[in-house]
Amino acid sequence: MTPTQLRELLEQVRLGHVEAADACTQVLALLRQSPIADLGFARVDHHRPIRQGFPEVILGAGKTPEQVAAIAENIVAHGQTLLVTRTTAETWELVRARVPDALFHPQARVITCERDPLPPGHGTILVVAAGTSDLPVAEEAAICAAVMGNPVERLYDVGVSGLHRLLSQHDRLNEARVIIVAAGMEGALPSVVAGLVHVPVIAVPTSVGYGASFGGLAALLAMLNSCASGVSVVNIDNGFGAATIASLINHL
Amino acid sequence: MTPTQLRELLEQVRLGHVEAADACTQVLALLRQSPIADLGFARVDHHRPIRQGFPEVILGAGKTPEQVAAIAENIVAHGQTLLVTRTTAETWELVRARVPDALFHPQARVITCERDPLPPGHGTILVVAAGTSDLPVAEEAAICAAVMGNPVERLYDVGVSGLHRLLSQHDRLNEARVIIVAAGMEGALPSVVAGLVHVPVIAVPTSVGYGASFGGLAALLAMLNSCASGVSVVNIDNGFGAATIASLINHL
Amino acid sequence: MTPTQLRELLEQVRLGHVEAADACTQVLALLRQSPIADLGFARVDHHRPIRQGFPEVILGAGKTPEQVAAIAENIVAHGQTLLVTRTTAETWELVRARVPDALFHPQARVITCERDPLPPGHGTILVVAAGTSDLPVAEEAAICAAVMGNPVERLYDVGVSGLHRLLSQHDRLNEARVIIVAAGMEGALPSVVAGLVHVPVIAVPTSVGYGASFGGLAALLAMLNSCASGVSVVNIDNGFGAATIASLINHL
Amino acid sequence: MTPTQLRELLEQVRLGHVEAADACTQVLALLRQSPIADLGFARVDHHRPIRQGFPEVILGAGKTPEQVAAIAENIVAHGQTLLVTRTTAETWELVRARVPDALFHPQARVITCERDPLPPGHGTILVVAAGTSDLPVAEEAAICAAVMGNPVERLYDVGVSGLHRLLSQHDRLNEARVIIVAAGMEGALPSVVAGLVHVPVIAVPTSVGYGASFGGLAALLAMLNSCASGVSVVNIDNGFGAATIASLINHL
Amino acid sequence: MTPTQLRELLEQVRLGHVEAADACTQVLALLRQSPIADLGFARVDHHRPIRQGFPEVILGAGKTPEQVAAIAENIVAHGQTLLVTRTTAETWELVRARVPDALFHPQARVITCERDPLPPGHGTILVVAAGTSDLPVAEEAAICAAVMGNPVERLYDVGVSGLHRLLSQHDRLNEARVIIVAAGMEGALPSVVAGLVHVPVIAVPTSVGYGASFGGLAALLAMLNSCASGVSVVNIDNGFGAATIASLINHL
Amino acid sequence: MTPTQLRELLEQVRLGHVEAADACTQVLALLRQSPIADLGFARVDHHRPIRQGFPEVILGAGKTPEQVAAIAENIVAHGQTLLVTRTTAETWELVRARVPDALFHPQARVITCERDPLPPGHGTILVVAAGTSDLPVAEEAAICAAVMGNPVERLYDVGVSGLHRLLSQHDRLNEARVIIVAAGMEGALPSVVAGLVHVPVIAVPTSVGYGASFGGLAALLAMLNSCASGVSVVNIDNGFGAATIASLINHL
Amino acid sequence: MTPTQLRELLEQVRLGHVEAADACTQVLALLRQSPIADLGFARVDHHRPIRQGFPEVILGAGKTPEQVAAIAENIVAHGQTLLVTRTTAETWELVRARVPDALFHPQARVITCERDPLPPGHGTILVVAAGTSDLPVAEEAAICAAVMGNPVERLYDVGVSGLHRLLSQHDRLNEARVIIVAAGMEGALPSVVAGLVHVPVIAVPTSVGYGASFGGLAALLAMLNSCASGVSVVNIDNGFGAATIASLINHL
Amino acid sequence: MTPTQLRELLEQVRLGHVEAADACTQVLALLRQSPIADLGFARVDHHRPIRQGFPEVILGAGKTPEQVAAIAENIVAHGQTLLVTRTTAETWELVRARVPDALFHPQARVITCERDPLPPGHGTILVVAAGTSDLPVAEEAAICAAVMGNPVERLYDVGVSGLHRLLSQHDRLNEARVIIVAAGMEGALPSVVAGLVHVPVIAVPTSVGYGASFGGLAALLAMLNSCASGVSVVNIDNGFGAATIASLINHL
Repeated sequence: MTPTQLRELLEQVRLGHVEAADACTQVLALLRQSPIADLGFARVDHHRPIRQGFPEVILGAGKTPEQVAAIAENIVAHGQTLLVTRTTAETWELVRARVPDALFHPQARVITCERDPLPPGHGTILVVAAGTSDLPVAEEAAICAAVMGNPVERLYDVGVSGLHRLLSQHDRLNEARVIIVAAGMEGALPSVVAGLVHVPVIAVPTSVGYGASFGGLAALLAMLNSCASGVSVVNIDNGFGAATIASLINHL
Repeated sequence: MTPTQLRELLEQVRLGHVEAADACTQVLALLRQSPIADLGFARVDHHRPIRQGFPEVILGAGKTPEQVAAIAENIVAHGQTLLVTRTTAETWELVRARVPDALFHPQARVITCERDPLPPGHGTILVVAAGTSDLPVAEEAAICAAVMGNPVERLYDVGVSGLHRLLSQHDRLNEARVIIVAAGMEGALPSVVAGLVHVPVIAVPTSVGYGASFGGLAALLAMLNSCASGVSVVNIDNGFGAATIASLINHL
Repeated sequence: MTPTQLRELLEQVRLGHVEAADACTQVLALLRQSPIADLGFARVDHHRPIRQGFPEVILGAGKTPEQVAAIAENIVAHGQTLLVTRTTAETWELVRARVPDALFHPQARVITCERDPLPPGHGTILVVAAGTSDLPVAEEAAICAAVMGNPVERLYDVGVSGLHRLLSQHDRLNEARVIIVAAGMEGALPSVVAGLVHVPVIAVPTSVGYGASFGGLAALLAMLNSCASGVSVVNIDNGFGAATIASLINHL
Repeated sequence: MTPTQLRELLEQVRLGHVEAADACTQVLALLRQSPIADLGFARVDHHRPIRQGFPEVILGAGKTPEQVAAIAENIVAHGQTLLVTRTTAETWELVRARVPDALFHPQARVITCERDPLPPGHGTILVVAAGTSDLPVAEEAAICAAVMGNPVERLYDVGVSGLHRLLSQHDRLNEARVIIVAAGMEGALPSVVAGLVHVPVIAVPTSVGYGASFGGLAALLAMLNSCASGVSVVNIDNGFGAATIASLINHL
Repeated sequence: MTPTQLRELLEQVRLGHVEAADACTQVLALLRQSPIADLGFARVDHHRPIRQGFPEVILGAGKTPEQVAAIAENIVAHGQTLLVTRTTAETWELVRARVPDALFHPQARVITCERDPLPPGHGTILVVAAGTSDLPVAEEAAICAAVMGNPVERLYDVGVSGLHRLLSQHDRLNEARVIIVAAGMEGALPSVVAGLVHVPVIAVPTSVGYGASFGGLAALLAMLNSCASGVSVVNIDNGFGAATIASLINHL
Repeated sequence: MTPTQLRELLEQVRLGHVEAADACTQVLALLRQSPIADLGFARVDHHRPIRQGFPEVILGAGKTPEQVAAIAENIVAHGQTLLVTRTTAETWELVRARVPDALFHPQARVITCERDPLPPGHGTILVVAAGTSDLPVAEEAAICAAVMGNPVERLYDVGVSGLHRLLSQHDRLNEARVIIVAAGMEGALPSVVAGLVHVPVIAVPTSVGYGASFGGLAALLAMLNSCASGVSVVNIDNGFGAATIASLINHL
Repeated sequence: MTPTQLRELLEQVRLGHVEAADACTQVLALLRQSPIADLGFARVDHHRPIRQGFPEVILGAGKTPEQVAAIAENIVAHGQTLLVTRTTAETWELVRARVPDALFHPQARVITCERDPLPPGHGTILVVAAGTSDLPVAEEAAICAAVMGNPVERLYDVGVSGLHRLLSQHDRLNEARVIIVAAGMEGALPSVVAGLVHVPVIAVPTSVGYGASFGGLAALLAMLNSCASGVSVVNIDNGFGAATIASLINHL
Repeated sequence: MTPTQLRELLEQVRLGHVEAADACTQVLALLRQSPIADLGFARVDHHRPIRQGFPEVILGAGKTPEQVAAIAENIVAHGQTLLVTRTTAETWELVRARVPDALFHPQARVITCERDPLPPGHGTILVVAAGTSDLPVAEEAAICAAVMGNPVERLYDVGVSGLHRLLSQHDRLNEARVIIVAAGMEGALPSVVAGLVHVPVIAVPTSVGYGASFGGLAALLAMLNSCASGVSVVNIDNGFGAATIASLINHL
């Protein structure tokens, strides 16, 4: 039972089309079903939309394509929206065989299939990326935020080494309700952005760089030490995590 | 010119009590004044309330008590709210000589003096602390969030080693609009909290612990790797930073 | 000479079926044989069952399949139970050619062939895993613990981000005599489990995660800093090591 | 209500001296009292002996002497055994004013006051220390283990650089049911001990050393990578943690 | 013999006031003196001005005040300019007793006494500092650069969190021939500055910050990973090192 | 519009061949064109030669060959010099199809195609490499420095373990205006070189080495801690970055 | 000219078979040849046997097979002994085409071809290895030590987890003049060996291990912190380096 | 019984002054005494001179002055030479009360009192230090080496930034049999020295430096990665350890 189904049922009750007792019975019957679908190798939690506002998301990394496809089919069969991250075209082939209208976003490495539309966020989430190499992470954030019901804008290739590119977009920064900033190398962009705006900035360090970037550690430390107010940080390359918290904020 | 003064002026214009041309002249005159007060050792930015929603905050660490007192006096003289973090009772003595109604919060190590009240946040910010040793950081977050115009609740001493203490407070977790979680040692509390609620969780690793806690690094890494959705992280012991982002979210 | 053979011999002496002097001669003769089988590239220690309670275990990593097969054949030829960890299906093909009833456990990457049964442990070892990706490590622990003579239970996919999944299994936690907990990412599960039970918890950090998990370091540090009592830790991904200490405890 | 009181009550029921219904009423009345004593700055959990087998232990580090004394008085007032770790002679003065028979163990930095005796462990816990400088950690482990109801033996100054000192004590190693090994510098002692015995070894890295010992990190890593079976590890300098898990094992 | 003395001697030769043969004799005599003054605890190298363009500089850290004073006296006695870094007012008292016109710069922690003026640099060295706490390092750079013969400008308190403060000084940035940028915390300022100018930027990470700044490591890594061209980096807090390379460049 | 074109136009104005008004119109028309060519996946900044003295450089790493070829074609179409770093022969094939006279330097992993010649540097840049394995980084520096308009000399295989090889080249060291030193392993060469000369030394740590070189970290730390004056450091393996700052210095 | 050739020539002079003047001419003629053979990509130093006691050794890693073969041919052509480390069978094929009697030692990954025999060492070098996986490093040390003129003994698979295997070889330990100990994982073996003998112990940490061994870092730190006297350490996996210092000691 | 006493006894036997049977009885009687003097807090091993060539050395760090004095008295009472490292003048006062002729070496922080002279080493140990700040470590090495029976030379303040200071001492380097090199900061000196000589070089990284020297880690890594042959490394600041291995080599 998705939140939409529940809302519709309660609306029917309010309109007098369904008896309260009957509605109660229906809800209880559904809840009596175990919310955990046990697939052997995974337990799919179908009550998560009710508790957490979004269905269980499949982290593709570390799962076989077959496992992903089986979980995906199970989620869609419950009328819930599908979101697979860190996945591949090869996995998509297997998912598509069971969920024909699933879409693959190659740069974001994400599979989506929208079913139960989420309530829309109150404003726009702006995804900012420092350079071309940060796009996979930025796109993961953008696609995930969109599928969670948020209008998403993109502002890419505006790294601090050419500050005029960023400053010329000052209006777009100010129109967003939440800003996600993905940057690797020295990770300075979130500090600069946060100094220009008055909304929450979610910083995503990326593993872009070489030498002493140490797989994103340099950018991560820079972001944690930001001298600007309003910056919080998620894990290296964690575009999905940034999207989740941005969406939570945007739905408040 | 604080936002309150500006709002009042514009209200006077709307009511016809002040001519638009006169108001314009007043605003321009104020803006013509340099917004930067140069104290020699620091530049106090008096337009920050307009750009960032809160006056410049004084980070006490690394400044002499005399420097803090001089900056504090300058801020209050402009009718702005005073907030000094990472400070001491000794500094407070000097500040108090110039700003008699300044308050000192010893556990939070914070000096406050409210002048221009900020617009209230839309919900409650809940500050959660794992153990007694995390209280200085948690209190820094709580005092700062309050002075930024947010109703603040506290839930302390609910670490994961005695889960029933946390679970028995499930209702209070659900009533908050934003949750700040301060924890040291293994840093597991934000993950557990985020799995129970559906609002943004700002995790603050604290430097509480010994041995392989490495000054809060263990908690920081744990929080960045949280398996729960909706957790973002600020710097170790950065209660003020958590309050800032929580307040930004709560004022959206 | 395995402990079983020795026990049988001594039982024969007790029953008067064998003369003490003869038994003594037999034992001495066996001991006179070098307990170390020198295969050129390895020295197989056939007295280890007597000293350590379990035959020498072959760590497959860093050995060629041919080397593993030769050592395996030598162990089984002495009537001892075979256990190969960190191995592959390819190696199993070679082992099977020499030890036809050897079994391969692909998820655990373990080859087993039970010969001389070990004395049974006194209780149950419960293996808990946070997520699907932790299963290879958890299964390595489970298979190894079983072949060492312990009843083993499994409780998988009960990470802290959905606490109800763990809490609903409170009874199973309480029925175990020793608990092994495998978790990656933020490594919070052992702390939560140890707060719910009153038996030793052996924590195994796994290298599951990305970004700032640094190959399991984040989970390792979290576990070492556990605020809960009764948690001790083994190396990252070391399911075998956890099984060994759990079995030692369970055989006390 | 301590476990001893409960056992006595149930024994009275078994003997017919107390009616089952009356016993039930007494137990319920006691349980109805909130088990959490809220001291403002701390929540003392008086049901912990029932859930965890030992009263709440006070970690002295990070608490003021006054806070420790108040919590200590509250614990003893409930008839429970007192254990304060990481404390000082100064704190003891304040505790003694409220709990006159409290004892201070200076080398271990521990305060104890035994009230409700715990059920005895089944064997002996042997505490082994590599060098003189490791004694504070080793003594913390020994005192804590003793107060938790375990017979404790000590074997000190047997570091691996003079192996004959350790080998000459082989018998004492073999007589223990659990062994705690505290070592700093290169941290090799637990591996050597575990290769000689057939019982669980709890390794405690100490921060003893200089240069590249990095505050115990060298010893910690060595212990986690032990090539010997049966070694698990606790945090650097965490003698109390080692005692807790050793006691849990010894009470199985 | 300082370069100035040598230049004057050669000028005298050119003018015919001194015979070439006599000049040669003088030079040889001077060179025949051992250029190394052995003070027992140090070897002062008096030919360094010839080889390296500046006399030997005394690193005060790790030397006793007496040692510093003795070396200082020896340097000044050779007609060379004195520069002591990382020193204290206490040391200055001793130096002043032997070199009465020595000056102490307390914020920079530097003692100077100019003797043999160095040839002037070709342009201006601009020293930029992110915040008030970075001033000791910035001042060390500024004082050292000045005593090495360079015109020095200062631009302080222009961190990236308030970008308008930096952008309003664009002209001053463009007028410099070399720019030294001192910044702690996230260390983003050198990247931003280097994106605005077309001259070499020497980045000095400072140990300003807390939590995950790890004593300047965060800033150091950020600067090494700068996405802007023309940034090179010196050691944490090494204002003197930055001044040296900036002066070398400015004298080319 | 490249700086050369602008200079020529202004020269025409000076000579009276072009009217100032017409020149102004031309310049404005050119500037009115957006200097940013938006290729979808990248924004090519064609005004960079004016602001930074060199066209935008393509970092090949993390871009597909098709992306590199498209950007390369766009840069050359604007009459600007092409420089692609961290690239491959495979990419060169695609670039060559669009820019037939592009050259590939395999050891340096660089593609170049000179168009608008840059003003020549004032002296020679000497590139020094410690060993044969450092040549890819050294060659990247050398090729990049040459294409930026600098005379380049090379001095390879002069590591500190055989000091006579370096000392015999003392003259060549002294003839350079800027020295780039690439070294891996213990990274001692820049300190030794800087002790022999009186010009800026740009140190490039390379990832050459094994064991505890930790991917160039050992060399990086050694260079940052150089006891010699005049050493600044760029990122590990960052030959291009060293060339850029060396060229900036050489063009002052 | 190798030391052997020089010794023979001087012996001829001593015996009166060669005139001193002629010998002098020969030596000067040889010395007049540049001792550095410049192969373009490398400078082979043919005087190294005179200065360092052994010809230049080729580190195969990071060189192409063709480069190795060319340098190898050049060394052998000068009558010097060939030693290539970190090489492959594929490279050997190319070397063999030019140096037909070159030998390949696959486990040690070393190519040798002895020409000018070195003076023999005074005692035996014993190479000890903890486990089978340490053999490549141990063999690199053994082969290199042998080709440098030292009698070499091997003692393998004697890790500290089964101490009796090591103790039973006490005599062999005592007969050596220098001992090389290669060990990974916890790196305890050198401490134990050094406690049993009275000769220098060269410890070689190996990258054997997983999880928190961090590529040999755990073993390296343990060895550096050895509580036993007489242990010095070389780089991780650096069997060649250990052989060099052991041979130097053995030739004193 | 010291080695000297034993040698004398055997000499008496050889000369016929003592009967073999009597000598045997004497030796056995002495050996029958426990070689371990148990002082309660320490076990003093009086057979160490026989096994290890030098009496037990007291590491002063981590022991109280009283403990050091008690152990010192016990060692001297057995006629053995006293060596206390990492100690203080305060401790020396207590030692002197019990061992009146004990000497204190303040820069080396070492107490010595020679009793049973050790057999002299075969050559000279040269102790080289890079700078003045490295002297405490260098002096610890020099004093310890001397008391172990070695002629010791010192060569201080010869860091690589002024190479001529080192090169001018080439003869002294060549006359040593073993060289100890103490250096902090970039740690390059051992590599340079080892490239100039043909004897073993023991490198001691010191914790001298600031910023990214990380307490000697930079120097340690540089020394482990030395490109020169014949360098082995001991722990940071471990002058005593370097002396021990140098003395072992010098006595071979």
